[in-house]
Amino acid sequence: MCQLLGMNCNTPTDITFSFSGFAQRAGVTDHHSDGWGIAFFEGHPDGTPHAQPDKGLRLYVDNQAASTSPVAQLIRQYPIQSRHVIAHIRKATQGPIALENCHPFVRELWGRYWVFAHNGNLENFQPHLHSHFHPVGDTDSERAFCWIMQEIAKAHACMPPVEELTRTLRELMPTLAKHGTFNMLLSNGAALWAHASTHLHYIVRQHPFTTAQLQDEDLAIDFAEHTTPNDRVAVIATQPLTTNEQWTAFCCGELRVFVDGQPLD
Amino acid sequence: MCQLLGMNCNTPTDITFSFSGFAQRAGVTDHHSDGWGIAFFEGHPDGTPHAQPDKGLRLYVDNQAASTSPVAQLIRQYPIQSRHVIAHIRKATQGPIALENCHPFVRELWGRYWVFAHNGNLENFQPHLHSHFHPVGDTDSERAFCWIMQEIAKAHACMPPVEELTRTLRELMPTLAKHGTFNMLLSNGAALWAHASTHLHYIVRQHPFTTAQLQDEDLAIDFAEHTTPNDRVAVIATQPLTTNEQWTAFCCGELRVFVDGQPLD
Repeated sequence: MCQLLGMNCNTPTDITFSFSGFAQRAGVTDHHSDGWGIAFFEGHPDGTPHAQPDKGLRLYVDNQAASTSPVAQLIRQYPIQSRHVIAHIRKATQGPIALENCHPFVRELWGRYWVFAHNGNLENFQPHLHSHFHPVGDTDSERAFCWIMQEIAKAHACMPPVEELTRTLRELMPTLAKHGTFNMLLSNGAALWAHASTHLHYIVRQHPFTTAQLQDEDLAIDFAEHTTPNDRVAVIATQPLTTNEQWTAFCCGELRVFVDGQPLD
Repeated sequence: MCQLLGMNCNTPTDITFSFSGFAQRAGVTDHHSDGWGIAFFEGHPDGTPHAQPDKGLRLYVDNQAASTSPVAQLIRQYPIQSRHVIAHIRKATQGPIALENCHPFVRELWGRYWVFAHNGNLENFQPHLHSHFHPVGDTDSERAFCWIMQEIAKAHACMPPVEELTRTLRELMPTLAKHGTFNMLLSNGAALWAHASTHLHYIVRQHPFTTAQLQDEDLAIDFAEHTTPNDRVAVIATQPLTTNEQWTAFCCGELRVFVDGQPLD
């Protein structure tokens, strides 16, 4: 099984603390060492207007273990600021260990990048991909992503509001989940969607900020020193990353959408 | 004006030497400091069969100058092995300095990634993008790429042989070049296409290998120490990168395709 990590914020924030603990699960505290990847949406250097989506994307994928990869080392040290982050460490189930099988996957639709990562295993999922999204690699996950993109492209003529997209995604999820475990993160730079069929947890950090202690590494951070009272950050992960905070577990079959660092109802 | 760098090889090769000189042009020996990017196709870790395309892709884009960017520093030090590389340093003409305007651009078609970078400036190029490739950023370059992808998707039902794609691209280039300067590099992991309307040069390095001296940095390398007699590497760049080798200039309007480290006739 793979592991997912997502972050959604109301102001660009770096993920070095969470990623540091998460990357330990790739070969040190756990056995997910068949590759990893992380994607950061990024606005304009002089600030994207708050209500606008972030269109730029940095994608780092690697078929080495995140605990030893030189690229992961860069990510741990280089505080990339982003409002929407999706990361994944891989334990291969379908598809060999190869770069094209590393999540997150990216496609363009309606002039936006869409980023997707999956944890789980879909059996006998061979959808009819009759449109223009086709997998490059061999995973059930990329096939599922191409099918989701095809179906949302069919359901909407152009980019719909977040609420409408959420409704469409809620309709699509059961078709995937009936083939097996389907925990996933998806973002288009405007919102972050998370679906759990087994394990997914989230936490919202906001004022008053406290100190958090990583579970997988002897590292703590006092967020009060690095934030303003207006900041709000949601972190979503397969398993809680910290030992002294209250994480909320997703229900089975639940899809949540995060905007500005909190889940929408 | 931007600068292009491409590499096409018959065996996976690292580009650290050429990139090192090239990155100096972003702010040190020249003024192209409005962002940069590099894309590496990569085969399977246990070796992709020679005649097969490389499907995996590592893409690094950054809106900082390549001469100072921490990500560029990583690329200079981390010898990523690839048979198809496209790099670009940007001097903004159309579109602000932002991540989504940094080349290379990537799209998927027929289950393959396609990578594109452009040097030049197209005026009044507003093609009818009626298909499913749309620009995320604001550049004439990404617009041109989307149009090329649309047209090759219309011209072929599935992935054609390299020679057929070359013929299609030769037909498309004049439509772009009549709007202004259009020097470009394009790859799908099977071949690398290069088109020049003004400046583009290439060199083929093969046995017997010699020592090359960079133009933009006090650095020389004896390729004989790092190669086998069977290796062959083509490097394509806006301007020659070395002072003691014979580079071939492209003619105006010329499109060449490189496979296995050499141009096809």
